[in-house]
Amino acid sequence: MSSINYDELMQPVIAFLGCETPKEWLNEALNNLDILMQDHANCEKKAAGTAMNLMFRYSFFTDLQVKLAQLVREEMLHYEQVLEFMAKRGQTWQGLSAGRYAGGLRKEIRTYEPEALIDVLLIGAFVEARSCERFYALAPLVDEELGKYYRYLLKSESRHYEDYLALALDVAKTAKLKNPEEDIQGRIQHIREVEKNLILSPDDLFRFHSGVPAQAV
Amino acid sequence: MSSINYDELMQPVIAFLGCETPKEWLNEALNNLDILMQDHANCEKKAAGTAMNLMFRYSFFTDLQVKLAQLVREEMLHYEQVLEFMAKRGQTWQGLSAGRYAGGLRKEIRTYEPEALIDVLLIGAFVEARSCERFYALAPLVDEELGKYYRYLLKSESRHYEDYLALALDVAKTAKLKNPEEDIQGRIQHIREVEKNLILSPDDLFRFHSGVPAQAV
Repeated sequence: MSSINYDELMQPVIAFLGCETPKEWLNEALNNLDILMQDHANCEKKAAGTAMNLMFRYSFFTDLQVKLAQLVREEMLHYEQVLEFMAKRGQTWQGLSAGRYAGGLRKEIRTYEPEALIDVLLIGAFVEARSCERFYALAPLVDEELGKYYRYLLKSESRHYEDYLALALDVAKTAKLKNPEEDIQGRIQHIREVEKNLILSPDDLFRFHSGVPAQAV
Repeated sequence: MSSINYDELMQPVIAFLGCETPKEWLNEALNNLDILMQDHANCEKKAAGTAMNLMFRYSFFTDLQVKLAQLVREEMLHYEQVLEFMAKRGQTWQGLSAGRYAGGLRKEIRTYEPEALIDVLLIGAFVEARSCERFYALAPLVDEELGKYYRYLLKSESRHYEDYLALALDVAKTAKLKNPEEDIQGRIQHIREVEKNLILSPDDLFRFHSGVPAQAV
């Protein structure tokens, strides 16, 4: 048994998010473990892709380069691990359309710098925090092997959430925004509301980050 | 001391390439170690980016997903290591335009599938093989610390070269090309000539994969 206190680890993550995952989504997840697994794989790849895009767009920012390179490596490793899980369980790759979640968040990105970068980083923090929260909620409900894996993922996802937050504040300070802390806090509150709405409103499509299953509403 | 026989490791890599790196390039490299280092960092990031693009474009091909995910992780680690080297040596990040090499190779990519994918993979094999060959040639000429690092890189670069080659053959077989081996061999010969020409012809811009320094011709 691991000696990690998961409740303690999760406290700041849950406090950061505007809401917890509704029971209806968890039930839907248990009935659609194959979609959950495939979409989880896709999410790991997309998270790595997003981080790498940032690395190309903001080459001059060394701190960001190193933190994101590490994040890419971890997301890629998780991607390989989820593919391995799928293979082990006889699940073949299936094409899945994207849910509304990432697009719904990205709509909020301001169109000028450094605010655009700050928003992308804050959205990264929310996506990582939400993933973390969902793994935590799913872990005791799925089989032991998968539950153990989800708990293992918690640790890196919660670190990624912290990394993204720290980078956003770093950018705000480096860019000498007048009130970096205040600007960041205002954006966090705004994105928190948008994210919460995506999680609590009815959603036709079940995905890893989807809202309340429409038929359950 | 490592017990690896580098000459043996390099034999197939050098046999695969159409030529060895000219002395003039090596001299230029020793006189421009800072550009070499910065461009090396850029190359690691671009290699990871190219591999990740392939992962998004060919999602259905599981073998490729796993091999490329591993490759992305290694290139990212090398990227972090080169940035660390630069920091340790007091070298700050500098913006560098891209050389002609990658573009010159990419021009050869056929515009229809699966031939386009096969060409991208073969070009990947050549880029990795050339990097490997240059690290091998540079290792005894640079300082001990850097030389040791370049030898360490050889191992993964030579594995990446093999992975790309194996994937190209895999795609040709999976796509049921009439003569997969023959088709691949024909393309290897063609790309080998193009690559050789990029390495042996005069080049105005010194980069990690540049040709013979124009002023030396």
